[in-house]
Amino acid sequence: MKRKVTLKQIAKELDVSISTVSKSLRNSLEIGEETRLKVQAFAKFYNYKPNNIALSLKNKKTKTIGIIIPEIVHHFFSTVINGIEQVANEFGYSVIICLSDDSFEKEVRNMEMLANGSIDGFIMSLSKETQLKGDFHHITEVINQGMPVIMFDRVTNEILCDKVIIDDKYAAYEAVQSLIDKGKKKIALVTTVDYVSVGKLRTDGYTKALLDNNIPFDDNLIIKIENIDTCEIIIGKLLEDKAIDAVFAVNELFAVTCIKTANKIGLTVPQDFAVIAFTDGIISKYSTPTITTVSQNGLKMGNKAAKMLIDRLELEETEEENYTTEVIETYLIERESTN
Amino acid sequence: MKRKVTLKQIAKELDVSISTVSKSLRNSLEIGEETRLKVQAFAKFYNYKPNNIALSLKNKKTKTIGIIIPEIVHHFFSTVINGIEQVANEFGYSVIICLSDDSFEKEVRNMEMLANGSIDGFIMSLSKETQLKGDFHHITEVINQGMPVIMFDRVTNEILCDKVIIDDKYAAYEAVQSLIDKGKKKIALVTTVDYVSVGKLRTDGYTKALLDNNIPFDDNLIIKIENIDTCEIIIGKLLEDKAIDAVFAVNELFAVTCIKTANKIGLTVPQDFAVIAFTDGIISKYSTPTITTVSQNGLKMGNKAAKMLIDRLELEETEEENYTTEVIETYLIERESTN
Repeated sequence: MKRKVTLKQIAKELDVSISTVSKSLRNSLEIGEETRLKVQAFAKFYNYKPNNIALSLKNKKTKTIGIIIPEIVHHFFSTVINGIEQVANEFGYSVIICLSDDSFEKEVRNMEMLANGSIDGFIMSLSKETQLKGDFHHITEVINQGMPVIMFDRVTNEILCDKVIIDDKYAAYEAVQSLIDKGKKKIALVTTVDYVSVGKLRTDGYTKALLDNNIPFDDNLIIKIENIDTCEIIIGKLLEDKAIDAVFAVNELFAVTCIKTANKIGLTVPQDFAVIAFTDGIISKYSTPTITTVSQNGLKMGNKAAKMLIDRLELEETEEENYTTEVIETYLIERESTN
Repeated sequence: MKRKVTLKQIAKELDVSISTVSKSLRNSLEIGEETRLKVQAFAKFYNYKPNNIALSLKNKKTKTIGIIIPEIVHHFFSTVINGIEQVANEFGYSVIICLSDDSFEKEVRNMEMLANGSIDGFIMSLSKETQLKGDFHHITEVINQGMPVIMFDRVTNEILCDKVIIDDKYAAYEAVQSLIDKGKKKIALVTTVDYVSVGKLRTDGYTKALLDNNIPFDDNLIIKIENIDTCEIIIGKLLEDKAIDAVFAVNELFAVTCIKTANKIGLTVPQDFAVIAFTDGIISKYSTPTITTVSQNGLKMGNKAAKMLIDRLELEETEEENYTTEVIETYLIERESTN
């Protein structure tokens, strides 16, 4: 399928701003006649379809924010939503949520549906499949139509837009350092496969902490779980084969599975080994022992993402994009599993 | 504020069907001229505003389902959403979710926003505040505009529409009976305050099970938790004061708090007392001991609600409403807390 020419491409070609192109296509008198006609002629030549939705959006505000997230079963995403809702309500915005179910096709379909006049802007976290494919045309199109997009947590460098992230590498580094500070030397990393951006960064942080402390990196201590159903077996093997003294798990489900598997084979946490989990959720708080976690600060992430979006929606149209990436600080919540 | 006259009221007044009123107001030639003019005159007299949105909805399908739920932090609602998504995807529908945050005002606002052309029909569970106020005018209005509404879990008898529920009373009865079958006699009920419909029904089931087994009902064994923060203190008092041998908790948070509080004062579950929780969630599965639960079968509930809505959307317009209430079966998942 031939890719349609976008506002951005026209702008680049003619060396004017996107806003100038957009206004010219709306025949705005703010733009000098020569530029206006040139843009219009160019757009016609390339068969550019002035998107009525995008044009109407410039004028009609819905006061609604669209959220696209992979899923809601994980506590982290629920918390981010709560954070977005808080700020949205404060500023009189409504919130609509759609799930991509980690599917590229559903992410595209839901974005197109919402961009169709229901909302003013997006806050989104990429689906696994989208990250794997590296196809972000649906996001580019929405942005080119003049609709702001804020990405959080699972983001990509391929798209220029505002982003809210945590420093996954540093957060992992700190967690592993805290284990080393407690005298742990044989620290296993229980992680997912690498195609989600954050997984890679957390592994980097783990590795760096070991190296900075002159602890040899051992590939056998990195356990990749592809399917939660096989998690217990794989962890059981880890605990039986290697005399590890700590586990750093990239999510709390892996962490609690470590603890329960340990119990089954006669090991106890934290006596036999310590456990830290990434993402502070409901399991860590209520498991026995309670689990020390890296808090991703989902509420603050949601607050910030909503504020960035509303700022973009309510500030006067700017000629130049000026995107920022906000890094939300994480912190360690010390509980029983590392005592 | 004077209540606007609805399609339903006009229909009742003139003794014709809602569909006839609706078609007459659209000036459909399907309706005889006399009736048509009478309806139009009546509507004009009562200052009925033909809702353009509703009219356009009759013709324009969005192939989108709107969900309104109180919150998503609880695993039950996430599961219902997954169930709705499954069926919706199968039939080519998209899904939009809005949260009421248990607020009446947000529920009304979100329903009005979505009814405004974004969706074809609603699947909803009432907010606590709506149940407390007993004000359902926003739902009546949507239904009168010809938009189908399916209610699940937190429903009301005040609204005639399709509903998907579990038999909360019977499910509670069965759970308590299973404790009695294990020889338990002093069974505490840890519940919420009564204004949510399901809470009342579960208490009724608890009481009936005791009476049917000639166990005296003891008001002191019914613990009502208004605020989760005070949960531990109240449960601590229960465990220290009364020599109970089982707890039936209306949610898994109360159940896990019972177990953790017991541990703190030197009691062990299930040795010292058994625990059953309503709602099978992620905490019950991963707590130590794992918790026996009544599964509310959220996935099936979601499947059924979506199927009912899509049937209503895709079947030919019927003259008479013919609403059904589907009762989804629950089942007990036996785990360590009752062994």
